[in-house]
Parts: sequence; structure tokens; C-alpha cells
Amino acid sequence: MFKIKKKNDYIIINDNFKYLYNFLKKNNFYNIIILLDNNTKKFCLNYIINNLSILKKSKIIEIKNGENHKNIYTCIKIWEKFIKYKIDKNSLLINLGGGVITDLGGLIGCLFKRGIKFINIPTTLLGMIDASIGGKNAINFNNFKNEIGIIKNPVITLIDLFFLKSLPKKEIFSGLGELLKYGLIFNKNFWNIVKNINFKKKIFWVKIIYKAILIKKKIVDQDPEEIFGIRKILNFGHTIGHAIESLFLYKKKYISHGEAISLGMICESWISKKINNLSNKEYKEICNVILKFYKIKKIKKKYYNKIINFIENDKKNYNKKIYFSLLSKIGKCTYNKEVKKKLILISIDKMNKLYK
Amino acid sequence: MFKIKKKNDYIIINDNFKYLYNFLKKNNFYNIIILLDNNTKKFCLNYIINNLSILKKSKIIEIKNGENHKNIYTCIKIWEKFIKYKIDKNSLLINLGGGVITDLGGLIGCLFKRGIKFINIPTTLLGMIDASIGGKNAINFNNFKNEIGIIKNPVITLIDLFFLKSLPKKEIFSGLGELLKYGLIFNKNFWNIVKNINFKKKIFWVKIIYKAILIKKKIVDQDPEEIFGIRKILNFGHTIGHAIESLFLYKKKYISHGEAISLGMICESWISKKINNLSNKEYKEICNVILKFYKIKKIKKKYYNKIINFIENDKKNYNKKIYFSLLSKIGKCTYNKEVKKKLILISIDKMNKLYK
Repeated sequence: MFKIKKKNDYIIINDNFKYLYNFLKKNNFYNIIILLDNNTKKFCLNYIINNLSILKKSKIIEIKNGENHKNIYTCIKIWEKFIKYKIDKNSLLINLGGGVITDLGGLIGCLFKRGIKFINIPTTLLGMIDASIGGKNAINFNNFKNEIGIIKNPVITLIDLFFLKSLPKKEIFSGLGELLKYGLIFNKNFWNIVKNINFKKKIFWVKIIYKAILIKKKIVDQDPEEIFGIRKILNFGHTIGHAIESLFLYKKKYISHGEAISLGMICESWISKKINNLSNKEYKEICNVILKFYKIKKIKKKYYNKIINFIENDKKNYNKKIYFSLLSKIGKCTYNKEVKKKLILISIDKMNKLYK
Repeated sequence: MFKIKKKNDYIIINDNFKYLYNFLKKNNFYNIIILLDNNTKKFCLNYIINNLSILKKSKIIEIKNGENHKNIYTCIKIWEKFIKYKIDKNSLLINLGGGVITDLGGLIGCLFKRGIKFINIPTTLLGMIDASIGGKNAINFNNFKNEIGIIKNPVITLIDLFFLKSLPKKEIFSGLGELLKYGLIFNKNFWNIVKNINFKKKIFWVKIIYKAILIKKKIVDQDPEEIFGIRKILNFGHTIGHAIESLFLYKKKYISHGEAISLGMICESWISKKINNLSNKEYKEICNVILKFYKIKKIKKKYYNKIINFIENDKKNYNKKIYFSLLSKIGKCTYNKEVKKKLILISIDKMNKLYK
């Protein structure tokens, strides 16, 4: 069991629901809502209720799974249910699911009656190590990722590794990309641990997840609102990666987050080599490790304009210039690096050429 | 000229745009958007631009005036324009208008790319003394007032009394109700000033507005997030007043905010007399002063259920009980007072009987 405290919010790892039980006893919420999707209803809800019978009376709100439901119209439907259920300020919202549920549910909780308490119980690897940590709540808007949102921490983030058991392998790979990123931007030792993950052997997830959360918290706590800049290093791989994700969303095709940002990291490592002193040796190591876990998805030339269009709307941009977070070496990332459109497109060409 | 500072946000009163001019010079925003409605475009925009030519290049986003446009669909339209204009994090949103514009614009600014800087320039009396002070940003949702929102202060609230000149009289009355309330809940001297306002004589608005803002700030600063409770006294008159406003919104009829909460204050003063020791003498004084400025609008019995329905959804409720902020005397308000539905309906009966 691990417990990480900051001000009024807690991250709890594998404590058999003891902390949450005490929290519920103490607060005496009149209404508890569990927001989930069809997958987490099937695979996760019973486990929670069996462990915490106090939650039996909760109201369940179910949405369909998938990134394309993380939008304003889903918020509207859920708020309508809140009103129907007469949810008041002394109600608790429990977000039970992956990044879509915690991102969306966080925003819904922050805004209803100007804010009710909410808890995140991430059920995917990506959710456990990334989406549910750092308080970024958001929805997609007009094909732009996380365009509408707010930064606020849940009162508790509860991580229980039981959920990894029922997780499809593609969901593990969706989180793996972020684990690789944490190593690349902040901690070479962690990179070495993650790059050597072998799915044929036992993986010590609890330690990997705990270390990943500590890295993310260390970065986020220095710059919770992304004002000073350091938090931007978390966006390494994401400027191009998000554009790739947005392109797939636009084409109504699936790409996992981990895959998209891994392709983004290949492109941005190449840019790092070109303008930020990343060595060719480390660039090659990064490509090789990523290619060990993921396959290249070629981006066709006809979509290049679309990619640039998405990148032009990136939240790190400033006065219409495009800024990246780039590696100087494995374990060290710098931010606010201006990159020209032409270089971005060449980096995608280079990534395409790695296709086998 | 008055200046009220708190942390990173400022309230500026009548400084001929000097503070804003320096702020714009210092920050070098790439994009500035002015959000306004058809009225403020007609009566206020030129005045601003004539005083601050630096704003000539701003992008103007216009919405139709009126409370019924303060909704999520207006937000969606405005965010779509933001994307079209490639608004980035280093952009500034100026909300130029009454409470609808500052409530709506504040929320829009807080959420776009998880928050861009915004400034409020209230153009109505109500906006100057209430809506633009205290950081409550919100939209209506499913006929419920301010159901979706967030608490965050603008970087600057700029008050310029020039705008009162072009204001229709009904807008003055819309603000007057809140001025009366500030006196009733917090400061008997201020009540005596406001109750003696005589529209046939010169009114020293700048002093009244400055004092009103100081009262509101004094309350809000003790409890910015409405966690401790004291901020709830600002809701005196609003539990029933908001329900009356919601009822009119539902019937698609007009009632000014000041009028609705004044009727609410009559009802809630009667309840205060019944269960919170307000003297009959002061109750009668409150009724007489309000009736000097406003006419009773009778609430028909067939709408009583609707009124209760709206009140049941009030943000101050807790565990399905209905809580009011009630006067103990003029100048003193207490909060978290449970009131039964029956008593609420009798208070409306009593208010109806004051109809002449």
C-alpha cells in the first residue's frame, strides 16, 4: 500500500479500499453517483461494490466507452441526470474508468453547481499513471483534444491494481507510451526499467506505477497550472502525438493514446536531434525501443495539412508560433522550443520511413 | 478613482482606462477578443475603443442580449469562433456587458484550453456591484439559474460609471435589489443610504458602488469558494428569488433580477420573522422600502409546485433539506437555516397579499 498526500487531495495505491471507506463514513454523503462506461460496468463495478457495500445505494450513470464520447453533449446528458436525481452540493461523484471517464467526470464534477466533490478510480494503466494524476479534466471539442477543461484535483485518486487483470492488452500498450515518456523526459533509470519490460515475464506493476506517479507528481507539483513552464515537459511527444490522435478521431479510426504519442515521440526525438542536441545514438535507441512495442502507422501526405492544422491549435503555442518540448538527452527535457512547420513535416517523413 | 487589490486580481473604478492600458502594454497579447451583446455593441464598444485605441484590432464576438442566451449552446458557438480565430493561451478575453456577459464570458474563458486570461467590464449597475465581483462564473441549465459554473476571478474588473448614463431605468432597478440586500445582510448604514435613494434627486453612484463592492468583497474574501458558509449570506432573498426568476424564465416572461430577489427578500424576511427573530417592525420597514421601488408580482397557486421544484434544486441544499440565509435584524444575516416547504409557500401567500 502506498499513500501520496498533497494539501487536500490523496493518491492511494492498493489499500483494499480502507481510505475510501473511512472517507465515506466521515462525510455522510446523501447522494453518491458512480460514473462509468459499459466496460467498467461489466468488469469493475461489482468488484468495487463487493469491497464497499456502502456503495450499493449509489446511483449509476453509464456512458458508452470510447474517446468520441468525451464531448460536451455527453456532459449535457449527465448533468440532466444529476438534476433528475436531485444531486446537491453534498454529493459525491465517483469516476470509475479510464482516461475518458476521469477526464470527463472531473470536468462534470468541477462545474455542477460550481463544483461537487469527486473521486477518480482509474481502471486502465494509462488512467492510473497519467490521466487521473495532476488534475487535468477536459473534453474534446471540434476534433481538438482536451480543448475545453479545467485543472482541479479530485479529493482522492484510488488506484487498485486488480483492474489491470481484466484489461485487454491494447490498453496496456496505451499506457506504456506514457511510461516510456516519463523515462525519456525525467529519469533515465526509469527509462531503462520500462524499456526492458518483457510481456513474457512477470511484470512488477505496482512498483512501476508507483514510480511513474511519483515522477508525474514531482513535475506537476512544481507547476500545477502550467504557468511557469516545467509542466510542459509532460507534453513531449504530444504535440505531434495529439495531432495524430486528432487525425484518427477525424478519420473515425482507432489509435491508442500510447501508440499515437509513441509515434509523436519518434518524430519529436528526430526534431530534438536536429535542434536540441539529442545524440544520434540516443535517437536510435529511442526509435528501437518504441519499435519493439509499437508498429509505425504511416501518415499519408494528403493529411499533412490537417496535421499542421491540429498542431497550430496546440495549447503550448504562443503568439501563433509553434512550441515543442524537446529532449536534450534521455532523462532530460527542455520546453518552449520553437519549431517551424517544415521541420515538423520532415520529422513525419522520417517516421514514415521507419515503416516495415 | 478607486483601486481594490487582492492577490492577482484587481477591481478598478473610474480610472480612465489607465490601469488596463498599462496591463495591455505589459502583456503583449497576440489576440484580444471582446465578447459583447447587441446592446453593449451599440452603447459601449465605441467608448472603450475611443479610450483605448490599442483595442481597435480586437476580434469582436457578439451574442444576442438576454438571460435566455446564458446557456451551454452559446458557449459552444463562442468556442467554435475561438478556434476559428486561432485563440491561443496568450490571448485575452474582455467581457463587455451586464451579468449575462460576465457570467458567461468568465466560464468560457476559464474553460478554453483549460483557462485563458479574462477581464470583466460590467456595463450595468447589477454587473458593477454584484455579477462581476466575487468570481462566480456560470450559465443556466435546464431552467436552473447558474447551475453550471466555476469560481475564478478575472484578472481585472474595470468599472466605469460612464455606462450608467446610457442604461435604461429598468436596469438600474435590476441592480437596486442587490444594493438593498447588502444593507440588509451586512450594514444598516448602507441600508439607510440605499432606502433613501430618490430618483428625482442627484444620486452619488460612485460612492454607493464603491461601498457596495467593499461589502461584497469583505464577505467573499472570507469564503471565496463558499466552503465555510459566510458567503451564503449573499443568497438572502435568492432562494425564493431565484425560483421566481426561474419560473419567469420557464414561462418565457421577463422579470429583472432586482425585482425577483426583492420579492424573494419580502418572502424570506417574513420567514426570518417567523423563525429567526426578525422583529415585526423591521419586517414591515423592509416591505415598505421594497414596495417603494418595486411592485408585487403575484405568484399563482398553480405554480407553487414549480417554485418548490426549483427551490429543491438550490445550491445551498444539503442532504435534501432546504436551507436559507435569514435575517435576525437589519444588517445581520445568518445562514444554514432549515426551512420547511409549507412555510415557504405561506411566505409566498403573504407576499401575494401585499399586491395592490
